[in-house]
Amino acid sequence: MHVFRELLTGTPLPTSKLASERLNKFRALAAFSPDALSSIAYANQEIYLGLVAAGSAGLGMAWPIGLTIVGVLFVVAISYYQTIHGYPGGGGSYIVARSNLGTKVGLVAAAALLIDYLLTAAVSLTAGVDAIASAFPWLGSHRVAAALVLLALVTLLNLRGMRETGTLMSIPVYLFLFSYLPMLVYGGIRLWLDGPVSLAQVAPPASVNLTPFLLLHAFSTGCTALTGIEAISNGVPAFSAPQAKNAGRTLIVMAVLMGILFLGSIGLTQFLGVIAAPNETILSALAHRLLGNGPAYYLIQISTLLILAVAANTSFADFPSIAAILSKDGFMPRQFAGLGDRLVFTNGILALAASTAFLIILFQGETHLLVPLFAVGAFLAFTLSQAGMVVHWWHARGKHWLLKSFANGLGALATCTTLLVVGVSKFIDGAWVTILIIPLVVVVLMRIRGHYQNIADSLTLRGLPPSLLPYPRPRLVIPISDVHRGVVKALRYARSISEDVTAVYVEIHPEETKEVQQAWEIWGQDVPLVIISSPYRSIVGPLLEFLERTDREHNDGEQATVLLPEFITTYWWQNLLHNQTANLLRLAILYTRRKHGYTRAIIDVPFSIRE
Amino acid sequence: MHVFRELLTGTPLPTSKLASERLNKFRALAAFSPDALSSIAYANQEIYLGLVAAGSAGLGMAWPIGLTIVGVLFVVAISYYQTIHGYPGGGGSYIVARSNLGTKVGLVAAAALLIDYLLTAAVSLTAGVDAIASAFPWLGSHRVAAALVLLALVTLLNLRGMRETGTLMSIPVYLFLFSYLPMLVYGGIRLWLDGPVSLAQVAPPASVNLTPFLLLHAFSTGCTALTGIEAISNGVPAFSAPQAKNAGRTLIVMAVLMGILFLGSIGLTQFLGVIAAPNETILSALAHRLLGNGPAYYLIQISTLLILAVAANTSFADFPSIAAILSKDGFMPRQFAGLGDRLVFTNGILALAASTAFLIILFQGETHLLVPLFAVGAFLAFTLSQAGMVVHWWHARGKHWLLKSFANGLGALATCTTLLVVGVSKFIDGAWVTILIIPLVVVVLMRIRGHYQNIADSLTLRGLPPSLLPYPRPRLVIPISDVHRGVVKALRYARSISEDVTAVYVEIHPEETKEVQQAWEIWGQDVPLVIISSPYRSIVGPLLEFLERTDREHNDGEQATVLLPEFITTYWWQNLLHNQTANLLRLAILYTRRKHGYTRAIIDVPFSIRE
Repeated sequence: MHVFRELLTGTPLPTSKLASERLNKFRALAAFSPDALSSIAYANQEIYLGLVAAGSAGLGMAWPIGLTIVGVLFVVAISYYQTIHGYPGGGGSYIVARSNLGTKVGLVAAAALLIDYLLTAAVSLTAGVDAIASAFPWLGSHRVAAALVLLALVTLLNLRGMRETGTLMSIPVYLFLFSYLPMLVYGGIRLWLDGPVSLAQVAPPASVNLTPFLLLHAFSTGCTALTGIEAISNGVPAFSAPQAKNAGRTLIVMAVLMGILFLGSIGLTQFLGVIAAPNETILSALAHRLLGNGPAYYLIQISTLLILAVAANTSFADFPSIAAILSKDGFMPRQFAGLGDRLVFTNGILALAASTAFLIILFQGETHLLVPLFAVGAFLAFTLSQAGMVVHWWHARGKHWLLKSFANGLGALATCTTLLVVGVSKFIDGAWVTILIIPLVVVVLMRIRGHYQNIADSLTLRGLPPSLLPYPRPRLVIPISDVHRGVVKALRYARSISEDVTAVYVEIHPEETKEVQQAWEIWGQDVPLVIISSPYRSIVGPLLEFLERTDREHNDGEQATVLLPEFITTYWWQNLLHNQTANLLRLAILYTRRKHGYTRAIIDVPFSIRE
Repeated sequence: MHVFRELLTGTPLPTSKLASERLNKFRALAAFSPDALSSIAYANQEIYLGLVAAGSAGLGMAWPIGLTIVGVLFVVAISYYQTIHGYPGGGGSYIVARSNLGTKVGLVAAAALLIDYLLTAAVSLTAGVDAIASAFPWLGSHRVAAALVLLALVTLLNLRGMRETGTLMSIPVYLFLFSYLPMLVYGGIRLWLDGPVSLAQVAPPASVNLTPFLLLHAFSTGCTALTGIEAISNGVPAFSAPQAKNAGRTLIVMAVLMGILFLGSIGLTQFLGVIAAPNETILSALAHRLLGNGPAYYLIQISTLLILAVAANTSFADFPSIAAILSKDGFMPRQFAGLGDRLVFTNGILALAASTAFLIILFQGETHLLVPLFAVGAFLAFTLSQAGMVVHWWHARGKHWLLKSFANGLGALATCTTLLVVGVSKFIDGAWVTILIIPLVVVVLMRIRGHYQNIADSLTLRGLPPSLLPYPRPRLVIPISDVHRGVVKALRYARSISEDVTAVYVEIHPEETKEVQQAWEIWGQDVPLVIISSPYRSIVGPLLEFLERTDREHNDGEQATVLLPEFITTYWWQNLLHNQTANLLRLAILYTRRKHGYTRAIIDVPFSIRE
C-alpha cells in the first residue's frame, strides 16, 4: 500500500523543504495562466453557438462582443494588479472581502470561489475533450471516459507536489502559445491579402431574431473567458521573491496574451466567415480553414486539449489552498489544512477531484450544459474583491489612494454589471443552481465554524484551577462470557489499577452458569462475580442496565469504567468466527455517550493467543 | 429500528417459551413435506424436457422411468423410517454419518446437505415462478424479480418463528393436496372412459435418437423428485411427543402421497398424450387438458406456486438447524448457534436467504439451469446416511438388527447407484460444480474447527496456577495534540490508576510547541511531557516508534498502556470535522497486535462537551 502510494506520488518530503517549493515567473505563468488563456476555447465556442442561431446578422456581432469582453478583461486585470500589491501575502477574493467587508461577505466570496474552481476544472476537461473530438470524431462517444482519464492524470500530478507540476505544466502552455500565436499572425496576413468574406454568403439562415437579450446572453457566455484571471492574486506566495512584483508582471503579461488570443481568434472567425461543421468546435473550424487537414491542424487541436487539461490545474492549485485558508479560520474541516507527504494539501486535491468527477458524470461531459453554471461565481467573487479593495485603499490612505480606489471602484462596477447580466440572462439555463448553492455553502461554512467554536468553548482551560482534587480510583466492571486465560489476564490488569473490581456474567444458558462459577472460585482472585439472567438472550442490553443501575447506586456522579477482555486472532477474518459481543458493547457505550452525554471510560485488555 | 424489526418479525420471545414451539403431525406434514411433494413439479418437467427430444419413442419411456423413481423413493423412505427410530434426537445425515463413519465422512454429508438445501430453496422458487408464468405469461419476463419477492416473503415468515410459519404453511400444502388429488382421480376416470391417446399421433418429431444415455439422463433429472425426503429425519425434535413415532408415521404418509402424485401425473401425461406449449410447464398442460381454461385450472397453478414457495421453507427449517449443529460442534462460526429474538436461528435464515438470492440472480431464475447442480448433494447425503445406519445397526445388535441392516444396506445401494448415474449423466450440465464445491466446503469446515481448537488451547486454564503474582502497575502513555479540558481530565484519570504516566506531543508546527509547553507547566500535574518532532508531519508513525522504543528501554516484557483522551460530539457526523488521529492510532495499535502479537492495552477516556 505504502509502496504503491510512493510509486504514484513520490517519496514523502520533510516540512523543511517547504520554503524551496517556489515558482519563477516562467513557471508561474505556466502554473496560473492556463485557465485564463484556455478559456478562449469555450468562450469563443459559446459566443458562436449563441449568435449563429440569428444567422449572419448574429455572427456579425461577435467582434463587438469580443471587444466589450476584452474591455472588461483589462479593467479586471488592473484591479487585480492592485490587489497583488495591496495583499502581497496572497490576496484571494476571500481574504480581501473578509478583511474589508466583514466575515459574511468574505464567506460569500469564498463559497463563490470554491464553486467556481470546481466548475473550472469540470468545464476545462470537457472542453478539452471537445477540442480533441473535433479532430478525432470517434472520441465523441466516449466523452465522459476521456474527461475522467484526463482528470485522473491531473489529480495525480498535483498530488506529487507543486514544483514538479509546474515544470510539466509549462510544456503545454508554451506549446499552446507557440502554435496559436503564429496561426493568428498567418490568419491576419491571409485576411489582409484576401480580404474579408461576407457572412451573408456563408452563414446558415437565421432561426431566431437578433434581440438585445440574445446579445446579452452571448456576452454572458463569452464572459467565461475572464474566469481564472484572479488565480495569480491568490497565489502570490508561490512566486519567488520579490513576490508581489513578479506576480504583478506575470498578471499583465497574461492579460495581454489573453486579449490577443481572444480578439485574434474571434476576429479571424468573423471576418474570414468561418462556420463550424456539426460536432466541431469553432476554433477547430478556424484551424481547418487556415491550416487545412495536415499535421499543423492536429498540432493546434492537441495543444488546445493539453492547455485545457492543465487549465484544470489552476483549480487544483487554488481550490486546496483556499480550502486550507478557510480550514485554518475554522470554516472548513481541519483536515483541509494539513500538508500531505509531498507538501501539498492532499485532502483538498482529493475533494476537488471527487467533486469534478461527479459533475462530469452528472452532466455527461457536455460543456454546453456546464457553462451556464459557470461565471456567476467568478464574477461575484470579482465584485466582492474589488469592492473590498476600494474600502482597503480608503482605510490605508497611502500614496495615490484616490486613484487606486477609483481603479478598483471601476473594476467593481464593471464586474457587478457583468454579474447582473450573467445572472439574469443565464438564469433559466442553469445560473440559478449556482445562485442557490452559494448561500447554502455559506451556511455550511458558518455552521462548521460554530461547531468548532462550541468545542473550543467547552475545552478551554480558562477558569480551570491548576491544582485539582485527585480523581477517585475508578470502579471497574469486567463483562465475561467464560473463564479463560484472557479473562484471568484482564482480571490481573484490573486488580493492578483499582481495588473496586466487579465481574459480570450474562446468563443465556442456565446450565453453563455452574461451570463458570466453579472456575471463578479457583481463578477469580476474590473479585465478586455477578450473574445476570437474560430471558431474551440479549447480552448487551442487560449489561448496559447493570452498568446504569450500579452507577446510580454509587451515586458519586462517576460512571464505572468497563474493562473488556479481548483476544487477538492471527488474521482479521478470524474475528468473524467469534461472537462480536465486545464490539457490540463498545458500540452501545459509544452510543450512550453521545445520547446521554455519558463519559464512561473503556479499557481494552488484549490477550494474544501466542502468549 | 427496533420498532421496525418488531413489526416485521414480532415481539421477542423469552427462552422459556422454547419447549412449547412444537408441531403436531398435521402441522409437521405441512412444515416438512412441501419440498418432497412439490418436487413433482420440476421433476416431471425435467423428465418431459429430456424425453420429448426423442419424440413419441422418448415420451413413451416416462412411465417406466417414473416407476423406477418411485421404487427408489420407497427404498429411501424405509431407510429413513429406520433412521428416525435409530436417532430419535434428530438424525440428520450429518449426525448419522459422523457418529458411524467418522468426522470426515460426516462433514462430507454436512457439506452435501448445506448445498442441497440451498439449491432446494432456489429451484423451488424458480419452479414456482414457472408454474404461475404458465398461467400468466406476462410474468415470464420478470422471473428474477418474482422469485426474489417470494424469497423475501418466505424469509420474513421464517424469521417470525417456527409455529407461526407452520400454521401459515399448512394452507398451501393442503390446498395443493385437495386440488391435485381430485384432478388426478378425475383424469383417471377420463382415461378409463375415453381410453389412452397414442403418443405417435401427438408427439413432435424426434430430433435425437432414444439412447440409453438419454434415458439415464431423464432418470437423473427425475430423481430430483426425491430431494426433501430426509427433511423429517432431521426435524424429529420439532415433533410433539412421542416424537419418533409421530415423525415415522408422518414420513410414511408423505412417501405415499409423493408416490401417488408423481405416478398419477406422469401416467396421465403419457397415456392422455399431453404435449406442452412453448413456455408452458407439462403440469400446466395436463391441467389445461383436464380442466380447460376455467377457474379450476387457475386454482391448480396457484396451488403449485404456493406449495413450491413453501417448499423453499423446508430449507429454511433445515439449513439453519444443521448450521446450528455444525456450529455447536465447532465447524461453523459460533453465530449460527445462537437463537434470535423469536427463538429461531436468525443468522442461518439470513445466510440462506442471501445465498439463495445470489443463486437466483446468477442463474437468471432459470430452473432448467439450476436442476443439474441439484440432486448430487442430496443423493450423496442419502448414501452416507444409509451406510452409516448399516454400521449403526451392526454395533447396536438390537432386535431384528440383521433385517434393519439389510434394509438400510439396500437403501445405501439404491442411492449410491442413483448418485453415480446422476453424477455421470449430468456432469457436464452442471453437476461438476457441486462435485467441486462439496470438498471445498469440507475443507472450510475443518479449518474453522481447527481455528476454534487453536483458540481453546491457547485460552485453557488447565495448568494455570490459581494464585498468580500481582500484576505490575501499568506504564501509561497519553498522546496529546493540545492542552484542553479533555486532556486534563484524562490526566487526572491516569494519575488515579498509575504513578507512571508520560504525555507525548508530536510536533508538526514547531511554533505551536511553546504554547503547549507553557500550558503544560500550569495544568500538567507534574506529569512529564515528551516532545517528538515529526519532519514528515506524520503523527501515528512517531508515536508508535516512541512506544516501541520506551517498551524496549523498560525491558520488563510489558507494553505500555495507551490512554487516549477523546471528546464526544453531539452528532456522529461532527466527528468528521476533527482529525481522526485517535482513531488512526487505535487502528495502528490493533494492527501491531495482530502483526507482532502485541498486547498493548488501550484506555479510552471520553470528555463530553456538556461537562
